[in-house]
Formats: sequence, structure tokens, C-alpha cells
Amino acid sequence: MPGLLFFRVLFGPLPVTLIATPQSMHFATTLELAGGGSLQAYDLSYETYGQLNGEKSNAVLVCHALNASHHVAGVYLDASGQIQPRSQGWWDTLIGPGKPLDTDRFFVIGVNNLGSCFGSTGPMHRNPDTGEVYGADFPVLTVEDWVRAQARLLDALGIEQLAAVIGGSLGGMQALSWTLQYPQRVRHAVVVASAPNLTAENIAFNEVARRAIITDPDFHAGHFYRHQVVPKRGLRIARMIGHITYLSDDVMNEKFGRQLRAWAEQVGADRAYRFTTQEVEFEIESYLRHQGDKFAEYFDANTYLLITRALDYFDPARDFGGDLARAFAPACARFLLVSFTTDWRFSPRRSRELVRALLDNQRDVSYAEIDAPHGHDAFLLDDPRYLAVVRSYFEQVRL
Amino acid sequence: MPGLLFFRVLFGPLPVTLIATPQSMHFATTLELAGGGSLQAYDLSYETYGQLNGEKSNAVLVCHALNASHHVAGVYLDASGQIQPRSQGWWDTLIGPGKPLDTDRFFVIGVNNLGSCFGSTGPMHRNPDTGEVYGADFPVLTVEDWVRAQARLLDALGIEQLAAVIGGSLGGMQALSWTLQYPQRVRHAVVVASAPNLTAENIAFNEVARRAIITDPDFHAGHFYRHQVVPKRGLRIARMIGHITYLSDDVMNEKFGRQLRAWAEQVGADRAYRFTTQEVEFEIESYLRHQGDKFAEYFDANTYLLITRALDYFDPARDFGGDLARAFAPACARFLLVSFTTDWRFSPRRSRELVRALLDNQRDVSYAEIDAPHGHDAFLLDDPRYLAVVRSYFEQVRL
Repeated sequence: MPGLLFFRVLFGPLPVTLIATPQSMHFATTLELAGGGSLQAYDLSYETYGQLNGEKSNAVLVCHALNASHHVAGVYLDASGQIQPRSQGWWDTLIGPGKPLDTDRFFVIGVNNLGSCFGSTGPMHRNPDTGEVYGADFPVLTVEDWVRAQARLLDALGIEQLAAVIGGSLGGMQALSWTLQYPQRVRHAVVVASAPNLTAENIAFNEVARRAIITDPDFHAGHFYRHQVVPKRGLRIARMIGHITYLSDDVMNEKFGRQLRAWAEQVGADRAYRFTTQEVEFEIESYLRHQGDKFAEYFDANTYLLITRALDYFDPARDFGGDLARAFAPACARFLLVSFTTDWRFSPRRSRELVRALLDNQRDVSYAEIDAPHGHDAFLLDDPRYLAVVRSYFEQVRL
Repeated sequence: MPGLLFFRVLFGPLPVTLIATPQSMHFATTLELAGGGSLQAYDLSYETYGQLNGEKSNAVLVCHALNASHHVAGVYLDASGQIQPRSQGWWDTLIGPGKPLDTDRFFVIGVNNLGSCFGSTGPMHRNPDTGEVYGADFPVLTVEDWVRAQARLLDALGIEQLAAVIGGSLGGMQALSWTLQYPQRVRHAVVVASAPNLTAENIAFNEVARRAIITDPDFHAGHFYRHQVVPKRGLRIARMIGHITYLSDDVMNEKFGRQLRAWAEQVGADRAYRFTTQEVEFEIESYLRHQGDKFAEYFDANTYLLITRALDYFDPARDFGGDLARAFAPACARFLLVSFTTDWRFSPRRSRELVRALLDNQRDVSYAEIDAPHGHDAFLLDDPRYLAVVRSYFEQVRL
């Protein structure tokens, strides 16, 4: 078929469906934690895509943010070998065969963090010391702890040095921490829509979400598993707050504006207010409720608390009197930082602080500020300029 | 005392303490409401400051926002004639003898809106039809309804035309509505930190707050009075969300930053993280919890729903296919609009939309965009440029 050949010469190989297979690894050596606690044994869920080369020089670690997991790219198959609907990994726009982070060239590892509710050891698992479900007794974790657990996974996989570590938002904080805790093990760090620490406003939003969960009568001080209930009210509120702040005002206006819920049209009535305080009136309300309901069905309340706290605590300049340049003196990776103009939770200003601190240390830094309308969510979307920046950065990463 | 005289010549009269006395007026004529309901009889709480002149041409009506009341200026005396601590009216920076809105010259009226929990008829009062407390059965109110109730109060006070109507935020929406519903009864409208309608993001924040209240098990679908409980969890969350969004990111960083709660210093320990997900760690958390706790002690949950809905519904351009200029064609008042650069809930862009619509109608508009750091809260604070703008505007209002 010369036509198809011509097409392939012009546009490269046809897209290949990447099939993902979750794996798990058990660790039996105690992990001491920054908060003073420890985990004597734990499991980490992870996935890998592509092939590790003979020199083991092409590994890229992907760190996840708030509600994501090790399922970074590709799709899952069901028992009959069919592709499961909506099973794409959370960064499938960015990672895969021929994609900006090209799994034909790189060996990509997605890892689920400790404390999560997607497979790695977390609050819903049994504490081997007591035989009871951890619940609120699961130790508080930091970004640094996660990175040390990830380093052990790399040890087990025989990977001494990463070609790159990449993450967005909280994942970007982990990428930053890698360059500080294991400077010799990271050649490149790609830090998207992230920050050197949270602002007061960000901590405040996290705190409101946590309060909604903690004050839900079904939370039972974190031991709700024993009561066979889930603090869904709190989780819903937490997710609604999150959704508002991940989007930009402009995108919300464009997507929902002041549109009323479709019911008015359905019953053929005039598009009029219902005049209700307790029921849905506007489309945006319906959207948020739906997002909250979905989230409350699958996310763990203790995990939510742990992960938002890890966000709050991350602050590498803290031990250096707030001097970010001094904090980043140990880092010797090359950096790509990306921010999005309408991201008001992890604003370009925060990325520029990181760029400045790295430049003060004469580090090799590329920085792209993408004029995207989608707010913080942009890091998960397929803005072509953003994808092109990441692609061109990875193209120059030597193996 | 020539020294004192000299002082008074230089600096004007010594400050006079304005003593406020709440009043109430009963209305026995049915008020038909925009939402289809009605109130057969109701009371409005109000206060007045200064003297109505013989021509009744110096009256200024002050409209309140979310959680304020008729107590706009001055202080209250206790039973023994002493000034009650912290009893200043909510706009005491702006209104009083010698202040920008000068009660030596103007007769100022503060009025509490229907549905509020500060004296005017609201959800916690008895429905005369049923003898039961209204609760969730209190009719849904709009900005337009409030203005019509206010107009009846002016009728009763014998005031045909206002020298001015003034309000901030939701109060500014009422001032706008005055110029549309009663164009002949308003010579000037002062609209501070307001908007022609809420954006999707603003509706979204209101909705999360409402969901927190409605899903609080103590809410009982709005009939919590019968159960002798108060949905305090929901009210706390609602208030915390409000507080975050009324402030600017910068002010929160300046005021709280990433400061830890003072406990660490008190026990002489090193300033270290406690590593806790459920307890307070940062100052901002402590502040928000305190604000939430205070609010839940005095504010009514049904009132919160009603008032946020009135905000959501206000949209004078709605009946004109979104054409704000056409909507404002009837207005013939002169206008002062003020916005604050860091106000992200009622941003300068929204005030400029109003300015444009008024200019399209060849109206007389003054507009000040104040470079203040305090976010939406700035309209309640004593920024000298802001106060000077309001002062100079009222100085040219003819009586």
C-alpha cells in the first residue's frame, strides 16, 4: 500500500495502543519518615512503559499529584482482552509511543505514592503492628518521604540514575525534591505548574477541604472504616473546592457562564429561574455536584488529608531561612520548568522564583510560560505549545 | 482654651461619637416577590444618622452586603449609658460626622434586608399563615425584592427622592437596582466593589458554601429550628471559603504567610512542624477556624442560602439578551463606581463593564480603580485614596 507508506513517511508511525499493566513491589526494610514515624514494611504500585536500555540510562520517573496514581499512560485491558473504556492514564496526552515523552525511546515509570488509595500502602490497609486498619494512625508523609520510597523502587529496578524525573503540581514538588535529595541520580528535572512552596491562600483552600472532611460526622476522627461508613459529604465539598481552584475564571465562564440547568428546556418551559436555594439552578452547580459525587465514591478521606498536608509542608527553603537559592545549591540536574498564565494556584510567579533560584546557582534552566486559558488544569491537557515544549526538551535529553 | 481652639481651627471639629439606635417598622401590605411568593406582613429594622432637612432632599440609603445589617455607623450604648465595646457599625470608616459620607450634612439610613438574621423578618421568624417558624419555607428573595421593600420604608419616612443610594458588593447591586426600578427616586448611586452579575466562579463558591450547609446533618432541610440544633459545621465551612475569597493572595501572604501556629514558641520548642493532618499547623488555619467558629455562633443558615442566591440571581441584563447597555437605559442617576485592583471576586473588569454600559447611555459616571492590596475586603477598610474619592464625590452632591 504505497498510499499508507507515503502517509507513514510523512507523519511517522501509526499510533500504537499502549497497554498498561499495574505491578506491585513489596519493601521489607523500615522507611523512616520526616515526621518521626516509620513504615516497617510497605508496597508500592507502579507501571512501566517502554524498554529499559542496556545502559539503564533511559529511565524517566513520573510523579503524580493529588488524586492521580501510577497509571500514567496507556489503557487497561479487561479479562476478555478488550480495552477498558475510559482507562487512559492521567498523563496519556504527554506520555506514550511517539508522544512528547516518547516511550519508544524512554523507559517510563509511574509510581503510586505511599498513603494513596490506589494500591500503594495507605490508611485503608492494615497496620502490621496492630492488625488494625491504619485509618488516622497512618503516619504523616512528606514529599521527601515519597521521594525516598521512590528511590528504593528504582534501586529494586536496578536503575542508578534517571534520565529525567517529571511531575506537575505536587508531582513537580517531588521532581524538585529528587534534585535535592539525590542530585547524582537525576540528569533532568521537568517541573510543570509547580511551586517552591504553597502560599497562605493555597494552604487555606487545603484547610477548608480538610475541615469539611474532618467535621463530617461520618469521619469518626479518621477511623470511619470501622464504622463501615465514608465521609462522603466532606469529600464532595473538598472536591468541589478543588475543581473551582484548578480552573480559571475565564474557562468557567466560557464553559458554564450563567447557564441554567437544562431542566427548564426539557420541560419546554421558558428559560426562567426556579427560585430555589437548595436545588440546582445553574449548570456550574450541577457540574460541581457531579464531580463531588464521583470523587466521594472512590477517594479515601485519610488520603486526602495526607496528600494535602504533604503539599502544605513542602518548603525546601525552610531550612535555609527562606533562601531558595541556598536551598537549591545541591541540585545539579538540568531543568525544564513550565507554568501557565491563568494558573492562580501555582502561578507563573512561583515558577519564576524557582528559575531565579536555579539561575543564582548557575544551573541549566529552560523555562516556558504558556499562555493557556485553563488554569492549573492546563498541565493535564493537550495544549499544543505545552506539548511541543516538553517534546523538544526530551528530544535533547541524551541517553 | 486657646490651644484646643487652635487645634480645632487646624483640624476641624473634634470627632463626635455617633450613637446609633436601632428602629423597626412594620409593614402590613403584601409584598409580591420576584420568585412568585409573597410576604403578607413584615418588619424592617433600620437606623438613621443625621437630620432629614426640611426639603427632605438629603437622604442617603445604605444597602448592606452578605453578613452585614442596618447597623452601618456609630456605636451602641449599653443599659448604663456606656459605649458597648466593638459595637461600631460595619461602614463606620466611611459614614459619620465629618466622614466621607458626612452625617452632619446627610440623613443616612441603614436598612436590614428581608430574610436577614439581624432583625428584619427572616426564616427564623414565624409565618403568620401557619404559626410555624418559616425555616426553608421563607420565600426566595431577589435584589429587586429588597429594593422594593426599602422603597416602602422610604415612603413611610416621607422621603420621595434619595440624594444618593450607596452600597458595596451585594449592596452595590442593590444601588444599581434602585437606579433601574426607581430611576426618578435616586439622584446619585455609589456602587463599590460590585458587578453587573456573578461570574460562574462566584456562583461556584456560593454553591460550595451552600452545599456545606445543606449537607450538614443538623440542617434538616432548613427546618433545624424545630430540632433545636444549628448546622454549625456547614456555616463554618461557608465562612472559611468566604474569608479566603474576600482577601487577596498577597494580603494573606503578608498577614499569615507560612507562619506556624504560636504553640511551638509557647512551649519553647524549636519552630518545627507538628506533622498532623487533623490539628492546626499554620497560622492561616487557626485564623480561618476562628472566623468560622465566630460566624456559626450568630449567623442563620437559611439566611446564608437566601443571600447567596440573591447574589447569584442578580443580572439586570438578563431580560435584554445580556445587553447591559440596554438594561441600563432607564437609569438616570449620576454614578460613582469604585473597584479595587486585587479584588478577584468583584474585579475591576466587572466595574468597567458597568461604566461602559452607563457611558453607552450618556450617563454621568465617575470611576475610580483603587490600587489597594486587600482584595474584596478593601471596600470595608480605610484606604485613604478610597475614602478621599467617596468624600469628594459626596461633597459635590447638591441637596
